[in-house]
Amino acid sequence: MSGHDGAVLALSGGIGGAKLALGLSRVLPPERLIVVANTGDDFEHLGLAISPDLDTLMYTLAGLSDPERGWGRREETWTFMAALAALGGETWFQLGDGDLASHVERTHRRAAGETLSHITDDFCRRLGIGAHILPMSDDRVATRVRTPVGWLDFQDYFVRRRCAPEVSELAYDGAAQARPHPGFMAALADAGLRAVIICPSNPYLSVDPILALPGVRAALAACAAPVIAVSPIIGGRAVKGPTAKMMRELGLPVTAAAVAQHYDGLVDLFVVDHSEGEITLPNMRVSKAAILMTTLADREALAKAVLTFADELRAESRT
Amino acid sequence: MSGHDGAVLALSGGIGGAKLALGLSRVLPPERLIVVANTGDDFEHLGLAISPDLDTLMYTLAGLSDPERGWGRREETWTFMAALAALGGETWFQLGDGDLASHVERTHRRAAGETLSHITDDFCRRLGIGAHILPMSDDRVATRVRTPVGWLDFQDYFVRRRCAPEVSELAYDGAAQARPHPGFMAALADAGLRAVIICPSNPYLSVDPILALPGVRAALAACAAPVIAVSPIIGGRAVKGPTAKMMRELGLPVTAAAVAQHYDGLVDLFVVDHSEGEITLPNMRVSKAAILMTTLADREALAKAVLTFADELRAESRT
Repeated sequence: MSGHDGAVLALSGGIGGAKLALGLSRVLPPERLIVVANTGDDFEHLGLAISPDLDTLMYTLAGLSDPERGWGRREETWTFMAALAALGGETWFQLGDGDLASHVERTHRRAAGETLSHITDDFCRRLGIGAHILPMSDDRVATRVRTPVGWLDFQDYFVRRRCAPEVSELAYDGAAQARPHPGFMAALADAGLRAVIICPSNPYLSVDPILALPGVRAALAACAAPVIAVSPIIGGRAVKGPTAKMMRELGLPVTAAAVAQHYDGLVDLFVVDHSEGEITLPNMRVSKAAILMTTLADREALAKAVLTFADELRAESRT
Repeated sequence: MSGHDGAVLALSGGIGGAKLALGLSRVLPPERLIVVANTGDDFEHLGLAISPDLDTLMYTLAGLSDPERGWGRREETWTFMAALAALGGETWFQLGDGDLASHVERTHRRAAGETLSHITDDFCRRLGIGAHILPMSDDRVATRVRTPVGWLDFQDYFVRRRCAPEVSELAYDGAAQARPHPGFMAALADAGLRAVIICPSNPYLSVDPILALPGVRAALAACAAPVIAVSPIIGGRAVKGPTAKMMRELGLPVTAAAVAQHYDGLVDLFVVDHSEGEITLPNMRVSKAAILMTTLADREALAKAVLTFADELRAESRT
């Protein structure tokens, strides 16, 4: 028996991806789920090492995420930010008091030489998360966007400027030199892997940084398990975040089909919402499911649907 | 006219000293008060630069200190500590959410090359503090205590071990190489200085680190202004903290007179509580005042009394 027998590998960014990851963690034995998180959004702020997507996944899978706000922790307090403002500190990036513990402890442990993945693993274990959350790499990758005001660091674009500047190009600084996490590559290479699921995250900001790591595209192409992507676009709109705006700015139609095209050659099956019209693509199948995840039941139902599609593809490929 | 004409210089540790510093800041034009803070308690914790006495003085003079707890900020929240505990972080040193802003911002600015005194000055200005709070030095000094379990770092002794180990000796690592803050030395050298007040802080933990800096004892001895110390001991007990326990362990009688002896040769006048018996010392005068500062009015009354003593001494020395 292989180490990943029946394991499911999910590639995820923050909020949208974490919803499906949560669903998967509830319909699978949690230890069978490996979530590879985008770390292209990671940055240093106030001297603290901040990993937004890793933290969103961690809080979501631990049941600690805020259900209203969509980011950060539930029952959060904001005393730090108020005191920081009074001292003249930078306040464009909101750091909740409880959230701050992740950043301070991570920064402290990284300064002592621990890897991001080791720290993440320990945090998850302590928070009772059964799934394995892995940073895509322990090396630094920094997503940047080209705009009329020049190349911007991701959080400058995303938070400080609220995605206002028009994006003409993206770059993943450091990606070509970064090593994908060995656990990620081992899972992709394992014949026992049940499925690879590209969560409904922003393709350009959350998934492409993962795909930009050396060897990842080839490993996905060679992977024995079916590769399935879930559309982040429903009815021409993004469920959350700047995906739709960014697609328009990049000259793309804001459609699920355009996202599917983006994953051409990588994905065996693309999952769109029941409300979409017929989509036919040369190199991949398209299946429909209820992909708008409002409730916890929605998350679980989509997770089950995706796993069913994967198992069907696997069964077919064996016959 | 000199730059310090009519200025009052107070040497202070944390809580006890800050009470008198607050009194002084309220009975003087605040810009006439210079408070030199002990930084021997400063340490790095979780990667953060923590300056307990500077912060206590800053919070006290800004009206932000907690009146009940005696340390930290009023209306503080503790979400960070709870989240840190859940992540397996070190929790022996309590960091309130608002307090954390001081440490994070200070650490960030020190890493960018700013001095502790410059940061302190900016924090105080932003918090509306009119008095000048100066760290005793911008160089690192670390108070350590010798105990049966060996030499301990100050916060290890003071907070983690709650002052339980018996102290046989104290050391101020780095003091001999540290430069006293230039503003501190300039004030001591100024003929216009009105008074030097050694606040009722722990003589061994809070005042001696300041006195251990090169040139400070000589500058105090040469200072034109009267030097007055206020006893931290009333009726054989310390108002707060480990002063009495430490005096016993060092083989000293726990009396105001023993503290006065400790300052022999440095101080012109020693202020004890009205409740004390007669104390006669060869090299200094002793005056009485109500030195237990429970209310804000107590703080102001003691500040006024000490300034009156100083002005009487100055008037005498001129005749």
